[in-house]
Amino acid sequence: MKNRQWTLASHAQGEVTESQWTLVESEVPAPGPAQILVRNLWLSVDPYMRGKLNAGSGMEPGDVMMGGGVGEVVASDHPDWQPGDLAEGLSLGWQDYAVLTPDLPGPAKVNRVDTGVDPQAALSWSGMPGLTAYFAMLEVGRPRPGDTVVVSAAAGAVGQLAGQIAKLAGARVVGIAGSGPKLQWCERIGFDAMIDYKTSSDLSGDIARVCPEGVNVFFDGTGGVVHDAVMQNLALAARVAIVGRVATAGAPGSADIGMRASSKLIETRATVQGFVVYDWWHRRDEGLRNLKKWHAEGKLAFREDVVQGIENVPHAFLRMMRGENFGKQLVAL
Amino acid sequence: MKNRQWTLASHAQGEVTESQWTLVESEVPAPGPAQILVRNLWLSVDPYMRGKLNAGSGMEPGDVMMGGGVGEVVASDHPDWQPGDLAEGLSLGWQDYAVLTPDLPGPAKVNRVDTGVDPQAALSWSGMPGLTAYFAMLEVGRPRPGDTVVVSAAAGAVGQLAGQIAKLAGARVVGIAGSGPKLQWCERIGFDAMIDYKTSSDLSGDIARVCPEGVNVFFDGTGGVVHDAVMQNLALAARVAIVGRVATAGAPGSADIGMRASSKLIETRATVQGFVVYDWWHRRDEGLRNLKKWHAEGKLAFREDVVQGIENVPHAFLRMMRGENFGKQLVAL
Repeated sequence: MKNRQWTLASHAQGEVTESQWTLVESEVPAPGPAQILVRNLWLSVDPYMRGKLNAGSGMEPGDVMMGGGVGEVVASDHPDWQPGDLAEGLSLGWQDYAVLTPDLPGPAKVNRVDTGVDPQAALSWSGMPGLTAYFAMLEVGRPRPGDTVVVSAAAGAVGQLAGQIAKLAGARVVGIAGSGPKLQWCERIGFDAMIDYKTSSDLSGDIARVCPEGVNVFFDGTGGVVHDAVMQNLALAARVAIVGRVATAGAPGSADIGMRASSKLIETRATVQGFVVYDWWHRRDEGLRNLKKWHAEGKLAFREDVVQGIENVPHAFLRMMRGENFGKQLVAL
Repeated sequence: MKNRQWTLASHAQGEVTESQWTLVESEVPAPGPAQILVRNLWLSVDPYMRGKLNAGSGMEPGDVMMGGGVGEVVASDHPDWQPGDLAEGLSLGWQDYAVLTPDLPGPAKVNRVDTGVDPQAALSWSGMPGLTAYFAMLEVGRPRPGDTVVVSAAAGAVGQLAGQIAKLAGARVVGIAGSGPKLQWCERIGFDAMIDYKTSSDLSGDIARVCPEGVNVFFDGTGGVVHDAVMQNLALAARVAIVGRVATAGAPGSADIGMRASSKLIETRATVQGFVVYDWWHRRDEGLRNLKKWHAEGKLAFREDVVQGIENVPHAFLRMMRGENFGKQLVAL
């Protein structure tokens, strides 16, 4: 029994290809004191991982690629964990087997997966993407009944949930995505209008036409030129949650060039805030409780895009970064 | 007795020159019912006026150029106003005489000028610039003891007051300005450190060196490349007040190109907010009370730059826009 692991070949600069990682084999490790050995069942690939490829991010060449997942406990030296339990955490990594330390504090903590839902939901609507949508929309966006909310990357893992949560808050929701099927899916789950950024020849103008009274809440998962176009359409006292910048993910911060928003911010007195879900981890239970309630009531649809096999994790990551996935990108092992 | 008036020759596009206005003469008007006739004593030129030159701003060619000032009442049809009273308002305009309607609501209201201070203080530290510094710093910037506050356009009308108010709140204050005398003045009135953006070859690096723990509050009166450099140095949970964009004032909003801040905003969870002082006009009395108290206690120094004569108002406006003034730009009539 071997452990296949994707290790970082070198730090990334600009565009990333599959040669960024190397597939190696090693022995399956044994859990140390208060540790558990987990066989990974589902891996999650997410835009934030692009940052982990850069020098200075904490990952070094040779390290197993970090990443969240869900796994089954196969050996345990921890009194609270038994073989057969399902564990979810950010430290499973791109590998068949992981040794985890359940009691680490904060986001590194290993969470028990409820048996009531599909295990992979802990990686999507009932996990980090769901909590990102929940807290960024409700605490930064703060949609009110009658508001117009624009969600970029609307068909993505976070975006589709953010739009549905804004609808639950009584707002009108406009999504921006790239491709007909993604637009149709968003409309099916309740988005009021959709804009295809790939076919639009005047994105700012198209947003203005669909949002004639301006944009009260902008939930931004992309950055880049889509960001610019929505910012030009902010309404008075708008709230902007900067959740992601996948559109410019290959570029270091100082190479992210585009339209500055100073003029529009003064005109609208809008508030722009950067968002990281782990700042809200102390309210994780509250968020999950509401997400599960809405899901049970049929108010939270969610689409997954599943790639099979450990050998395809880099491929799954890269297609997600290029926006080729349709729904939350997962890898089933 | 003639009324000399600067009228708008045409709407502006890009760079503005003195030919943007025409000096015309007309009869001195008489006040209508509930109006007063004011002889203008001091005119204020401010960056926001650049926006009024654009098509769609409400001003049309032939209109008298709008602008705030202080004047002496010379005729009155209003029971509360007598000849000899001093009046301050945004509707005096670039002219010798103005007919005003004191009872208009909101920012258009005509204010009585206290006899206890220099009349032109109503245009500077005890008026709109003072209130801008007060509310933008205390309500958006919210400096705490120990914070590092960066003020751009630090020697300008608003900037010099914003820096002193941050000092009163217990913060360390770093100013950015362009020229030795401006830097020295700011240090004299209490700024802890100054950076000359005109001589810096690495503005972001210079800010990092002077603010090794990052920038907790950024009071931005300029926009443009100075904005970009400070944004790259934000600290965790920083607050940014976007008060002006004089550096890119000639460019319409959609031509303001530079570094986007998405990446840094996510990293720092910073909040950026556009600011217009008239949103705080309901708290004008509170603001003025504190500004006057601090001034009386010698805690609020203020420097003016005075140009003489109605014929020189466009010149005064343009030198202010180019940053050639040193202190609040006023015109004495």
